[in-house]
Amino acid sequence: MALADLEVPQRNEAGISAALGILKQRFGEKLKSSDALREQHSHTTTYIPSQWPDAVLFAESVEDIQDAVRVCAEYKVPVIPFGTGTSLEGGVNAPAGGLSIDLNSMNRILRVGAEDLDVTVEPGVTRTQLNTHLRDSGLFFPIDPGADASIGGMASTRASGTNAVRYGTMRENVINLGAVLPDGRLIKTGARARKSSAGYDLTRLLVGSEGTLGIITEVTLRLYGIPEAMSAAICSFPDVEAACNATILAMQSGIPMARIELLDADAVVAINAYSKTDFPVSPLLLLEFHGSQSGVREQAEMFGTVAEETGGYGFEWVTSTEDRNRLWKARHDSYWAFVAVTKGKEIFPTDACVPISRLAECVTETQKDIADSGLYGPILGHVGDGNFHVTLAFDAAERERAEEIVERLAMRALAMEGTCTGEHGVGQGKRRFIRLEHGAGADVMIAVKNAIDPDNIMNPGKVLALG
Amino acid sequence: MALADLEVPQRNEAGISAALGILKQRFGEKLKSSDALREQHSHTTTYIPSQWPDAVLFAESVEDIQDAVRVCAEYKVPVIPFGTGTSLEGGVNAPAGGLSIDLNSMNRILRVGAEDLDVTVEPGVTRTQLNTHLRDSGLFFPIDPGADASIGGMASTRASGTNAVRYGTMRENVINLGAVLPDGRLIKTGARARKSSAGYDLTRLLVGSEGTLGIITEVTLRLYGIPEAMSAAICSFPDVEAACNATILAMQSGIPMARIELLDADAVVAINAYSKTDFPVSPLLLLEFHGSQSGVREQAEMFGTVAEETGGYGFEWVTSTEDRNRLWKARHDSYWAFVAVTKGKEIFPTDACVPISRLAECVTETQKDIADSGLYGPILGHVGDGNFHVTLAFDAAERERAEEIVERLAMRALAMEGTCTGEHGVGQGKRRFIRLEHGAGADVMIAVKNAIDPDNIMNPGKVLALG
Repeated sequence: MALADLEVPQRNEAGISAALGILKQRFGEKLKSSDALREQHSHTTTYIPSQWPDAVLFAESVEDIQDAVRVCAEYKVPVIPFGTGTSLEGGVNAPAGGLSIDLNSMNRILRVGAEDLDVTVEPGVTRTQLNTHLRDSGLFFPIDPGADASIGGMASTRASGTNAVRYGTMRENVINLGAVLPDGRLIKTGARARKSSAGYDLTRLLVGSEGTLGIITEVTLRLYGIPEAMSAAICSFPDVEAACNATILAMQSGIPMARIELLDADAVVAINAYSKTDFPVSPLLLLEFHGSQSGVREQAEMFGTVAEETGGYGFEWVTSTEDRNRLWKARHDSYWAFVAVTKGKEIFPTDACVPISRLAECVTETQKDIADSGLYGPILGHVGDGNFHVTLAFDAAERERAEEIVERLAMRALAMEGTCTGEHGVGQGKRRFIRLEHGAGADVMIAVKNAIDPDNIMNPGKVLALG
Repeated sequence: MALADLEVPQRNEAGISAALGILKQRFGEKLKSSDALREQHSHTTTYIPSQWPDAVLFAESVEDIQDAVRVCAEYKVPVIPFGTGTSLEGGVNAPAGGLSIDLNSMNRILRVGAEDLDVTVEPGVTRTQLNTHLRDSGLFFPIDPGADASIGGMASTRASGTNAVRYGTMRENVINLGAVLPDGRLIKTGARARKSSAGYDLTRLLVGSEGTLGIITEVTLRLYGIPEAMSAAICSFPDVEAACNATILAMQSGIPMARIELLDADAVVAINAYSKTDFPVSPLLLLEFHGSQSGVREQAEMFGTVAEETGGYGFEWVTSTEDRNRLWKARHDSYWAFVAVTKGKEIFPTDACVPISRLAECVTETQKDIADSGLYGPILGHVGDGNFHVTLAFDAAERERAEEIVERLAMRALAMEGTCTGEHGVGQGKRRFIRLEHGAGADVMIAVKNAIDPDNIMNPGKVLALG
């Protein structure tokens, strides 16, 4: 099924016009409708063209959100929450217009619970802002998607990143959410207790729902003590399969790796050029270990043994903070390395996730598919989770081929009992795979959506195909 | 709000009669309706009186479940899934009659994924059956509610136990479910990938929904490598507050404890008498550490230091398997110790969970409440999670006082940003707290229930109050 065949909500001109009039009166200067701001608020880091909202509300409080949602509900006008605009699949686009609610001014850290290892923040707080704030407390929040995303946005897309193999994703790390429902009511999805058996898991229902069920107004997150020691390691492998085998064996051995990242040979070449590193041009694992001084040494040694058994070479243990930071900076700059090497082409980042036993096969087939298509698409993987990224570069003539590679990748992942997206989210770009992945489960999702948002005003045209 | 004030579904005599006729034809000897079996299938380990189903189907396959649910759906007849019958809050009662579906014959382990550290089982597999099966694989499944419950039942109540502080609850450990919807369709809630951002989290929606949204037919679980070394420790404290402070400090220090269990002085007395142990009559922490040989030593030493700083005494490190097993057997036999000491009174086990910073206060106030009420109620706690159990003993004359203590405990936990149940579930017994705990969130739960099960045939009268 092509994207174009999916239901797209229609513009409700009369409702939008009436609602904007009321919103303008209520919010004055907090409501903006300049072209520049409208364009910026539908700007995404994807290949999907922008679709502007009609206006942008710079919300400053929960009451602002509730008031705006109530007006939009009355006139059946779409509401699209906006954090940092770094969603990769068109999550902030406004296909039927409506109101973008910018949450960046709601960026207060409301409470740090040092004894409970938790923190409550407004949705506009970004992950680096949070960790900067926590720096002196001895605590940190581990989840690190590529972008410096907002915590509200990260909860919305069930984000993760390099640390998920050890610390989990937003699914495991959100304790409680405040959210405004499509009728303007405010709920809390849970208590602040670490666990509960009291009723349906509304927290997990909202995490990953991409703004289609409500607007997140507050997030309580798990925190972790900064480990006494952190060390990193690198190890090269003759092929992707050997690197995956090392990962599997390390996980089976119970080595509690904090990070285990795969770079394929194309990615290594680009990163070497951009970051002046000299990694061997071969699949590479970058690792990080967290624990006590002796614990991280033990973990690194155990991994060294595993690597040797699985054909790894050039294993190097990195303990100094400077060397470790240099290593991870090179990894985190990979996006720019790919941009540099592809000289002005468009970049199409996509992801998939499969059981780790199928990862080598999935990556290898995908590499072959990219090569056969004549495109450039280096691969990075959070291999401990079976999750990997393909960063396709394309020009106008190659666009269709790039889309076909993404299509085949999603289908390949599904055939291997995987998912069409491990951490990027569905947005508009992967809506067409939801029914293929979930079958009758897609009907359950639609029933839930209809029950909570019967007029489909919350981020319409995303995640599900209601039509 | 009293339990009696909540909506109770009404018997649909005509529908039940018609459905049973069809089911009898379809299932023959698999369908039973003797009084003994009907009584047994509404028997629960709680204070709530039995309410019998009209018949019991011993299901042998997913198709059996689908066929039975389709018939019950057509005639609007309640369907109550039954595992081991060890739910504590009336989860298997049939307040409006209907069909109990016994899943114990569906107890095959379908697939062990050693590379993916996962396993797929039928819902009737019990946790000890699973671990016995896994014994030679080097893998284990950590979650251990008191009873040898079925995996389907554990998923349904979002169960946990002593290991949750390290390994999480069923919420974190169910990867994927098969489930029959109220209309008889079969869904899978997720992929077998470790993480996904592809749509609403149906897995977490079903985990903890106690059979009110569908019947679980298959469960894929995370597994863990059996640690190279395990050791245990005990440490006494002058009061509950000191024991809680030690727990908080240990968690902040990042000691990855596998278990940290609190016994209050009353519990210690009963256990000493029953298990012939000689623990000091004072709040006691029992701990377990998992890791490498040197890792568990380091963890135990770190905890020793923490205990010293917080007033602990009698810290003892237990490394031999025999001593460790004896320790945990004493802990796991606590139910029988309480039964023995209360000489034939009824036992009313309840639980609550609060942020760990409030745990000492919550436990201490609860102890005082029990003492003031003149009842006996020892306390055990999974203190790393802020979760604790009160085991009230009562006779006919004391029953009302026991119920009042449970009521006040739930309210106390809610006032401390906690939950009315950390791991027992809601069933019938805690339905009255759901709106108090979740506010407008209870309406969202009801909307979801109505959307998925509009005729309320799935385990009616549990978890929510729809009326």
